Amino acid sequence: MDKNSIKTGDFIVILKDKEKWEGKVVQVFENMVTLKLNSGYNVGIKIDEGTKIKKLWEEKVKKHRPVKFELKFSKSKPLVSVLAAGGTIASSIDYRTGAISASYSASQLIASVPELVNFANIKSRKILEEMSENLTPKHWKKIGREVFRELKESEGIVLTHGTDTLSYTSSMLSFMLRNLNKPVVLTFAQKSSDRGSSDASMNLICSTITATKNIAEVVVVGHGTISDDYCLINRGNKVRKMHSSQRNSFRPINCFPIGKVWPDGKVEFLNKYRKKEEVKEDCYLDDKIEEKVAIIKFYPGLDSEIFDFYVDKGYKGIVIEGTGLGHTAEDLFPKIKRAIESGIIVVMTTQTIYGRVNPYVYSSAREISKLGVIYLEDLLTETAYTKLMWVLGHTQNEKEVRELMLKNLAGEFNKRLQPTQFLY
Amino acid sequence: MDKNSIKTGDFIVILKDKEKWEGKVVQVFENMVTLKLNSGYNVGIKIDEGTKIKKLWEEKVKKHRPVKFELKFSKSKPLVSVLAAGGTIASSIDYRTGAISASYSASQLIASVPELVNFANIKSRKILEEMSENLTPKHWKKIGREVFRELKESEGIVLTHGTDTLSYTSSMLSFMLRNLNKPVVLTFAQKSSDRGSSDASMNLICSTITATKNIAEVVVVGHGTISDDYCLINRGNKVRKMHSSQRNSFRPINCFPIGKVWPDGKVEFLNKYRKKEEVKEDCYLDDKIEEKVAIIKFYPGLDSEIFDFYVDKGYKGIVIEGTGLGHTAEDLFPKIKRAIESGIIVVMTTQTIYGRVNPYVYSSAREISKLGVIYLEDLLTETAYTKLMWVLGHTQNEKEVRELMLKNLAGEFNKRLQPTQFLY
Repeated sequence: MDKNSIKTGDFIVILKDKEKWEGKVVQVFENMVTLKLNSGYNVGIKIDEGTKIKKLWEEKVKKHRPVKFELKFSKSKPLVSVLAAGGTIASSIDYRTGAISASYSASQLIASVPELVNFANIKSRKILEEMSENLTPKHWKKIGREVFRELKESEGIVLTHGTDTLSYTSSMLSFMLRNLNKPVVLTFAQKSSDRGSSDASMNLICSTITATKNIAEVVVVGHGTISDDYCLINRGNKVRKMHSSQRNSFRPINCFPIGKVWPDGKVEFLNKYRKKEEVKEDCYLDDKIEEKVAIIKFYPGLDSEIFDFYVDKGYKGIVIEGTGLGHTAEDLFPKIKRAIESGIIVVMTTQTIYGRVNPYVYSSAREISKLGVIYLEDLLTETAYTKLMWVLGHTQNEKEVRELMLKNLAGEFNKRLQPTQFLY
Repeated sequence: MDKNSIKTGDFIVILKDKEKWEGKVVQVFENMVTLKLNSGYNVGIKIDEGTKIKKLWEEKVKKHRPVKFELKFSKSKPLVSVLAAGGTIASSIDYRTGAISASYSASQLIASVPELVNFANIKSRKILEEMSENLTPKHWKKIGREVFRELKESEGIVLTHGTDTLSYTSSMLSFMLRNLNKPVVLTFAQKSSDRGSSDASMNLICSTITATKNIAEVVVVGHGTISDDYCLINRGNKVRKMHSSQRNSFRPINCFPIGKVWPDGKVEFLNKYRKKEEVKEDCYLDDKIEEKVAIIKFYPGLDSEIFDFYVDKGYKGIVIEGTGLGHTAEDLFPKIKRAIESGIIVVMTTQTIYGRVNPYVYSSAREISKLGVIYLEDLLTETAYTKLMWVLGHTQNEKEVRELMLKNLAGEFNKRLQPTQFLY
């Protein structure tokens, strides 16, 4: 069969270099055919002279359609709400749409992972239809509202989310959900470079188990290794996507994970976390945020006028992702000074990702600190950004902002960094 | 003794919480005394009611002064040039200046590490006096010229450099030094959070050993662990500072290290590298670069007009540090399109740091790729930035730039990523 006769929507088999791919054609672009595999992932295959292509029969195609599944309620099990905010985990079980997109019904997700009912009664609902790279602070508010609404009914929440900006969302939720007294578990599926199978099922099972535990925090649950052995439970504001494709890409930053969870139900805790009984007041949603906040990553040669760009556009906060212990070139100092004098709150994190910023070691950081820049200890840039938005939504008084930014509001600071937390 | 009687330049001892610090006062700022320790590092200590302070006698102070050291030439050993470009490694043996700054004489550095003469005849010269956060592309040219000049005489080069922007420099040197046929070894000292001793000596010894080996590449040598057991030899354009303070902060990204080197002279190679005999043509310096290149880190809520800022300022190249496999929000697409239409070369890397970008998996990356953005496989943002500057210094023809950007010029691409390279 010739590549010119392939069209979007065809079910085909491609044989090349002794490897075999079977799936639905998503796109034909020059010599590249993008195929949606049976696992739900897409793969781009270059068609050259030695490549063989076969069409599949309609019988085979039918097998790809999801079965219907009826949910039964068990009084002995807690109620967990699965909220779907899009991402690969959504499309990994959906064969109706071709390309990976974020449209799916959450009940289908559960139908494809019947193990979930061993641990909880499942309720599900789709709340968003966006790939995570398109999410904005407005979507975070929407997600916050939907999660908070669901918390009134359920024992725990599982939120499925695209991987790309997941840690921004989990971090923001950790600030918006005040006095959180139940587990809010974000999970995902990762396009895996190392194996063909999907990680969606195990992540969903482990997340549901986590959502039935005595945890009163926003956490992220996903593969701990590239094998299907266990998932890590990570604090929502101390976790980051560290690999573009491996299934074990979400890693704890500047702390140990809260724990490990196995798909058979076993959980092992490795670190301190907040328990339900420690929360004395009612949970409420506080989604007042200031969206005029920017991140400026420093690098050698950075145009210092970038600060003017944000000052002139009326921004209220800037996160500088500095080098090392929190440094920038000194030619930026006058611009940083101007930004602060015009009322902008400027905070400092580090692009090394691991470790703490410290304005007391080198002269350049001492000078930056004297200008009024707030050094945010061991916070991730993602966490600094969402926290600054949230804090500026409540006060723009410099002294109050500084105090709140340096106060531990949701477990985001770790006072005791340990060498073995590096590259965990 | 009262904190108000301490002044810059005093040699003092501080006793607090059963800990003891001894050193020279660099600064007194509010309640914080910054002390330059005997190891060469600075530490900020908060003075409260329980803190005791004592002044040291002049006799003790004299001990801090460096001794003079005479170098003898040995015919059986190769000549290694130590070029000093500043950074902590410089000041870690210098007690004349108070605060950490980049002024020192390279011969003093060697005088303090006499083990170096076991491995090589040492020549040394200071080439820069800047902390690395202040380095710009102009400094890279200067460093390139000095290294190239020294390569004519010596068997290998050791370049001491501040940690903050070291991997930008090493990456740029890997492109500027064409047909490099000797080792160029960048090294550093790290302000260590975990122990008081300095890592400068061992890094310098291991770098000198590496500079005598049959390696024809730009490499970075520094502690492999937080103990003083061995150093890693990493390729200069596939290495990154991943921790703000630990001595083992320079890690290989998307590859294994070239090797390990022990201070007793042992070397173990772990990966492929270029050897001297593989280089058939003469080494030359090619430092033509286009400085009008910017990095834009994408994040949810990024103001899309940032692209206009660079277009309007006449920039020639932009590196987008996207999410995941190389994504941005779709509201940026029209701005990216405008940038490309106005002749700017736009390339894509990922902020996950580990892993590869891939425009064939998700629809948003397919669309970005169609706009003309070049997806740079497994390149670090730092490497993409320096390489784009270098390539644009030679041609601004879109087709030629694309070809060169995707061509392996200095070992910067790794075709076979392995799961165990993640978080090495």
